[in-house]
Amino acid sequence: MCSLPVPREPLRRVAVTGGTHGNEMSGVYLARHWLRAPAELQRPSFSTMPVLANPEATAACRRYVGRDLNRTFTSSFLTARPTPEDPYEVTRARELNQLLGPKASGLAFDFVVDLHNTTANMGTCLIADSAHNVFAMHLCRHLQLQSPELPCPVFLYQLPGEESYSIDSVAKNGMALELGPQPQGVLRADLFLRMKSLVGKALDFIELFNQGTAFPAFEMDAYRTVSRVDFPRTEDGDLAGTVHPELQDRDFQPLRTGAPMFQLFSGKTVLYEGEATVYPIFINEAAYYEKGIALIQTEKFTFPVPALPPLSPDP
Amino acid sequence: MCSLPVPREPLRRVAVTGGTHGNEMSGVYLARHWLRAPAELQRPSFSTMPVLANPEATAACRRYVGRDLNRTFTSSFLTARPTPEDPYEVTRARELNQLLGPKASGLAFDFVVDLHNTTANMGTCLIADSAHNVFAMHLCRHLQLQSPELPCPVFLYQLPGEESYSIDSVAKNGMALELGPQPQGVLRADLFLRMKSLVGKALDFIELFNQGTAFPAFEMDAYRTVSRVDFPRTEDGDLAGTVHPELQDRDFQPLRTGAPMFQLFSGKTVLYEGEATVYPIFINEAAYYEKGIALIQTEKFTFPVPALPPLSPDP
Repeated sequence: MCSLPVPREPLRRVAVTGGTHGNEMSGVYLARHWLRAPAELQRPSFSTMPVLANPEATAACRRYVGRDLNRTFTSSFLTARPTPEDPYEVTRARELNQLLGPKASGLAFDFVVDLHNTTANMGTCLIADSAHNVFAMHLCRHLQLQSPELPCPVFLYQLPGEESYSIDSVAKNGMALELGPQPQGVLRADLFLRMKSLVGKALDFIELFNQGTAFPAFEMDAYRTVSRVDFPRTEDGDLAGTVHPELQDRDFQPLRTGAPMFQLFSGKTVLYEGEATVYPIFINEAAYYEKGIALIQTEKFTFPVPALPPLSPDP
Repeated sequence: MCSLPVPREPLRRVAVTGGTHGNEMSGVYLARHWLRAPAELQRPSFSTMPVLANPEATAACRRYVGRDLNRTFTSSFLTARPTPEDPYEVTRARELNQLLGPKASGLAFDFVVDLHNTTANMGTCLIADSAHNVFAMHLCRHLQLQSPELPCPVFLYQLPGEESYSIDSVAKNGMALELGPQPQGVLRADLFLRMKSLVGKALDFIELFNQGTAFPAFEMDAYRTVSRVDFPRTEDGDLAGTVHPELQDRDFQPLRTGAPMFQLFSGKTVLYEGEATVYPIFINEAAYYEKGIALIQTEKFTFPVPALPPLSPDP
């Protein structure tokens, strides 16, 4: 496996983005909280900037007002000539690219942690782009070891060859926290506190790295996308059923050939017909109905993560 | 207690309304289902009309597009002269008043069952206007007896002297089903099936009544509004905290003096300081943030419901 180069300098410019989706309330209120109390985010070797990523969607308590901001950080959106017809989020993505990037440049932020909620029963999910991202894998491992009371499954979202499109992709490196279940527009105290604690631990990891700590090699278990599965539909495209009760809330659990997958309004059950056991996630996520996604099928795999060598002391 | 007159004629015109709030998916998809399969709603003595109450909000998967439809069935909205500036839901309320009413007229439908979901952990809540509504109380009792596996608490929402404003108030009588927890924009198969079954049992009750069945007197336990409580706020009106983890998800459970109620972002706990034990409901309901309601405090009370006399046979 070819690994991305790990940082050879301390990470000095770090951001935490919340409200990338304006109705995912843990990140919305953590960003607002830290904008008032930024000292909580500082560490001896670096500063962290809190960012309310999508203020208009947050004010409207909607995922977005024009288009999904977190699918808008591709080169075609970021580099196109601005026009008055651009959706708000296209303009906002360019602003954020100036603030935290520019993407793929030496001027970009060193790390971005992006904060999300899901209506699915995904618990404390850590999202990174791929297994090649050794630094992010060590950060995920640190969060798992520091939160022994919580399963913290790692989801690697990027399909082979797919261009990165998420907000953290404008920085040199990044990851997302995906906590659920939490309804859109609801702020649960338990998830707020859990997310706050996880961000603190992520910053502690960066501080340890900046101070010259070495992190040994390990084996990582993770989930990666196999395919996205739509709801059963009528001929005119409306829902013909929904997730089966035996699959609902079973994110990260194995789904085997012949197990119930959907229940039609007619009462009929649709079975999973794939040959390989898959691990569905984002099961019945509210925001994905419009994307035609009832769940994401993942495969579970294990891979070696090489040691993260210590930074040399400053000359 | 003065009781409303009970029907002395069979109920012939009954409607089931779903999608009154466009992101409460059980009712949205039941209405759509029954519009395609209306025979399921028929009974020997009467027909039932399925209605998708707010098509524009349903298409947008939002509670409403202009204003909350289910707060718009007051005489001031229904009788004002239409203007081009009227929000969509004001126009739609007038259409529904023509279809199902006119409110407080002899032409109105006999009964409307309105279908709702909440993000709060309210289980299977039956909502009626007041204890004076003897027919609705017998219907609620029937649903409780026919669903022994489910607690079906009865919430009486109307404050003394308050004008009725909900969609079922345009009919001669009505009630609402409020099932949760379900996130906005999510269709859970378990709640869909439960709501479908409850509507069927409600229609069965009306059929029994129409056929001349007598229903004996009984004692009813119910919850009625004491007050609505807002979230803790900052000076500029933003949230300063949210529902305390020890209160979250405890709808219909007693809240006693000195128990935790809110948790501030500062970490401080706000205690319940009332003297009387209350029973909070709609705890952390997503749609009520904009209304300034973190929960509704209710009191639990017991009252006698007189017998529902049998209809005399047709002459």
